[in-house]
Amino acid sequence: MSKYKHIQEAAYHANMQLPKLGLVLFTFGNVSAADRELGVFAIKPSGVPYDELSADKMVIVDFDGKTVKGKLRPSSDTLTHAVLYRHWEKIGGIVHTHSTYATAWAQSQRDIPIFGTTHADHNTVDIPCAPPMNDEMIQGDYEYQTGFQIMNALQNKGLSYEEVEMVLVGNHAPFTWGKTPEKAVYNSAVLEAVAQMAYLTEQIRKDAPRLQDSLIKKHFERKHGPDSYYGQQ
Amino acid sequence: MSKYKHIQEAAYHANMQLPKLGLVLFTFGNVSAADRELGVFAIKPSGVPYDELSADKMVIVDFDGKTVKGKLRPSSDTLTHAVLYRHWEKIGGIVHTHSTYATAWAQSQRDIPIFGTTHADHNTVDIPCAPPMNDEMIQGDYEYQTGFQIMNALQNKGLSYEEVEMVLVGNHAPFTWGKTPEKAVYNSAVLEAVAQMAYLTEQIRKDAPRLQDSLIKKHFERKHGPDSYYGQQ
Amino acid sequence: MSKYKHIQEAAYHANMQLPKLGLVLFTFGNVSAADRELGVFAIKPSGVPYDELSADKMVIVDFDGKTVKGKLRPSSDTLTHAVLYRHWEKIGGIVHTHSTYATAWAQSQRDIPIFGTTHADHNTVDIPCAPPMNDEMIQGDYEYQTGFQIMNALQNKGLSYEEVEMVLVGNHAPFTWGKTPEKAVYNSAVLEAVAQMAYLTEQIRKDAPRLQDSLIKKHFERKHGPDSYYGQQ
Amino acid sequence: MSKYKHIQEAAYHANMQLPKLGLVLFTFGNVSAADRELGVFAIKPSGVPYDELSADKMVIVDFDGKTVKGKLRPSSDTLTHAVLYRHWEKIGGIVHTHSTYATAWAQSQRDIPIFGTTHADHNTVDIPCAPPMNDEMIQGDYEYQTGFQIMNALQNKGLSYEEVEMVLVGNHAPFTWGKTPEKAVYNSAVLEAVAQMAYLTEQIRKDAPRLQDSLIKKHFERKHGPDSYYGQQ
Repeated sequence: MSKYKHIQEAAYHANMQLPKLGLVLFTFGNVSAADRELGVFAIKPSGVPYDELSADKMVIVDFDGKTVKGKLRPSSDTLTHAVLYRHWEKIGGIVHTHSTYATAWAQSQRDIPIFGTTHADHNTVDIPCAPPMNDEMIQGDYEYQTGFQIMNALQNKGLSYEEVEMVLVGNHAPFTWGKTPEKAVYNSAVLEAVAQMAYLTEQIRKDAPRLQDSLIKKHFERKHGPDSYYGQQ
Repeated sequence: MSKYKHIQEAAYHANMQLPKLGLVLFTFGNVSAADRELGVFAIKPSGVPYDELSADKMVIVDFDGKTVKGKLRPSSDTLTHAVLYRHWEKIGGIVHTHSTYATAWAQSQRDIPIFGTTHADHNTVDIPCAPPMNDEMIQGDYEYQTGFQIMNALQNKGLSYEEVEMVLVGNHAPFTWGKTPEKAVYNSAVLEAVAQMAYLTEQIRKDAPRLQDSLIKKHFERKHGPDSYYGQQ
Repeated sequence: MSKYKHIQEAAYHANMQLPKLGLVLFTFGNVSAADRELGVFAIKPSGVPYDELSADKMVIVDFDGKTVKGKLRPSSDTLTHAVLYRHWEKIGGIVHTHSTYATAWAQSQRDIPIFGTTHADHNTVDIPCAPPMNDEMIQGDYEYQTGFQIMNALQNKGLSYEEVEMVLVGNHAPFTWGKTPEKAVYNSAVLEAVAQMAYLTEQIRKDAPRLQDSLIKKHFERKHGPDSYYGQQ
Repeated sequence: MSKYKHIQEAAYHANMQLPKLGLVLFTFGNVSAADRELGVFAIKPSGVPYDELSADKMVIVDFDGKTVKGKLRPSSDTLTHAVLYRHWEKIGGIVHTHSTYATAWAQSQRDIPIFGTTHADHNTVDIPCAPPMNDEMIQGDYEYQTGFQIMNALQNKGLSYEEVEMVLVGNHAPFTWGKTPEKAVYNSAVLEAVAQMAYLTEQIRKDAPRLQDSLIKKHFERKHGPDSYYGQQ
C-alpha cells in the first residue's frame, strides 16, 4: 500500500465537498492535502471532472512543485499550492475555487469589509484582496508568483496566515487554507457566505458601518480565544 | 425514560428543519424547545454538525442558563435563549440563524419595511432591528445582554413579543420565537423570505411606499384576528 | 365516484407543481381547476401543507364562492378565483403565488417592462400591476374586490384576459390563469422568470430600452399567431 | 439502424444536460449536433418537454434548414442553427438557451466586460452582444436573419468563431457553439457563470476595471495556447 494513501484519501474527499457545497462549476477548483513529514502534498489532477475522480488519481507533488508520484498532470495551480506549503509551515490543506460571490469581490479588487458577526466569528479583519500582479510577474512563472502575491498581501497588512485563512487574488478568485484540508474547505464555504452577505449589506445600505472593535474581538474569541466556548472542547 | 424526552425530540426535529429550509450553513444556527412546567429548555449542543445530531444529544438547560442534563456543551447562544424564556412567559421555542438576507438587513442596521401582504400576513409593523450593543455590554456577559437587547428593541417601539415574533440584532443576525419550536422555525423561514423580497423591492424602486394601514390590518386579521379565516379552524 | 373527481385531480396535480417549481414557501399559494358545465371549481384547502394534500381534499366551490362539497375550508383567496371564473368565461384554471421576484415587482407597484423575447414569447405588453385598492374596498369584501381590481387593471389598459394571462396585484402578489390549470401554473413560472430577468436587466443598465414593436409581434406570433410554428401543431 | 443515430444520441444527451445545469425553464432551449460528412444536424423537436425527449425524436435537418428525417417539427430556431453550420465549417454543436444572467445582459444590449480570469480562461475579449435586428430583417425570415446577425456581430469586431464560442443576441438571449455539442453546452454554462459574476462585479464596484492584457493572454494560453498546461494532454 502506498505511503501517500492517507493524503490522497484526504484530498479526494475534500475535493468532492466542493461541488456539494456549490462552490465549483465543472472543474473550476482544487484542494490539496499535505504531509509535513514526507514533505509532499496530494492534489487534484488538472481538468478531470469530479465524477471521474478517485483517491488514487490524486497526484503527489513535493514543495518545489515537482511531481513525485502519479500518471496524471497535477492541477495547473499546483505551483501556488507548493509555494504556500513551503513558506507556511503550519498549514495542511489549501483550496482554490471560483465561487460566485468571492470571485465577484476579487474581480472588484476590493477587500471584503467586516460587517457582522458571521465574518467576525472567523476573522477579525477585512478579508484581504491581493492586488493584480504586474506584467513582469505574469509573464514569468505565473502560478509561482501567485503564491508570493498571496503571501505579500498578508504581510503588507501585518496579518498572520494562522489567523487569516482566506484571501482574494485581485481579478482572479479566492484561496483558502487551514491546518487540514477539511478546514480549508470549510473556510471556502464561509468566505462565499460572507462575500454574499457583504454584497447584500452594501446594496441595502450604501454606507453600512463596519463592525465595532469590541464586537469583533468578542465573537472571534468566542470561537478562537484561550477562553473560547464555542463547540465541544 | 427521561422526563425531558419530549422537548429533546421537539428541539431535535426543529433543528433538523433549518438545513432543509436553507437557513443555515454548517452549524450556524440553533433551536430550543421549552417545557414551562419543568422550567427548562432543550437546546442544540454547540458546534455539532447537523448530520451528527440526535434527540438525546440535546442539552437540558434551566431559565438561568445552567445545564441541568447533558454531556455536551450547549449552544454558545444559550444565555440569550434563557433570558427570553425567563421574561417572555408564553413562548415555547426560539430560533437563531445567520440566514443570508435577514443577516444582510441586520448588518445594515435597518428595520425591514413592510412593503406587502407577505409581510403583513405575519406582522403589522416593520421588522425591528435592535441597535448594536455598547462596548460595556459586549465586554460583559455578551449572550445574556443580547437577550436584553432584543427585549429592549421591542419595548422601545411599544411592540409585544406575542404579536411580533421576529427581530434582527444589529450587526449580528435574526432571532425568532413562537408558542412552539415549529412555529419559531416557520417564523425564521418567513423572515428570510420577507427580507429577500424587501431587498428586491428597494432595488426595483428606490422609493417604494410602505403598505397602507388598511391593508396591513386586513391581511393580519385574515390570519390572526378574532374572525380569522385562513387555515382550518 | 364523485362527479368532481376530474377537477379535484387536476387541481391537486397543479398545486403540487408549485413547490417543485420553487414558486411557494409553505402554503403561500393556491391553484384551482374549473368545470364550466358543472359551474364549479376545485381549490386547495386553506393552510394545509403540500405534503398533506390529496385530490379528495380539494374543496368544490361554485362561481359565487359557496362551498358545494368538501369538509375543509377552501383557500382564503377563493372569492377572488370565483369572481374571475364568473366573468372570464374561457379560463379553466387560476394560480396565486407569492413567488419572490414577481412579488417584489408587485410591492414596487410597477408594471414589468417588456425587455426581451422571453417576455414577448408570452405577452405583447408590459405585465400590468393593478394599483392597491382604496381603503373602502379593503374594508369591504376584500377577496371579492381583489377579483374586480384584477379585471379593472386589464380593462383600463385595453387588455384581454385571453391574451394577457398574468397580472400583479399592487402591494400583494401575482395571479395567473389559463384555459387549463396546467397552463396557469406554466404562466406563473414564466412570470417569475420574466420578473427576475427584468430586475437584472435594469440593474445592468438603468435605461435599458423596451423591446421594439416588430420583435414583440414576431415572437408572439411565432408561438400564438395563426401561422405559429412553435411546438407540435 | 439509422445512419443518423450517432448525432441523435449526441443531441439528445446534450439537450438533457441543459435542465441539469439549470440553464432552461420548461422547453426554453435547444441543442443540435452536426455530422459534417452527411451534411446534416440533429436538433430538438419544438416545444417537447425534456422528460418526454428521446434520441429517436431528434429531427434530422440539412444545412439549408430542410427536414431530412423525423416526424416532429424541429425547434423554431432551426434556421439559425442551419445558417451557422453552413458558414462555420469547424463547429459540430450549437446551443441556444434563455439562461437568466446571460439573457439579462442580452436584454441590456451590452457586451459582457472581461473582469477576471474565469472569463479569460475561455475568451480573450468581452463577450459580444449583437445589436437587435432592424424591422425589415425581423419581418423577413427571422430565424435565418438571426444567424447572420450573429455572424456579423463577430465579424464587425474582428473575432473568429473558433476563438469566441459564445454571443448574446440583443433583446433576445445567448447562443454558444463548439467542435462538439458537449463543448457547446459547456460554453453555455460558462457564459451563464461569467454573466452572473460580471453583474455582481459591477454592483460591488461601479467602475470595476477590465482585466489587464497580460493576464488575459496568460490565462487563455494556459488553457488554449500551443504550450497549454491545463487538463490532461
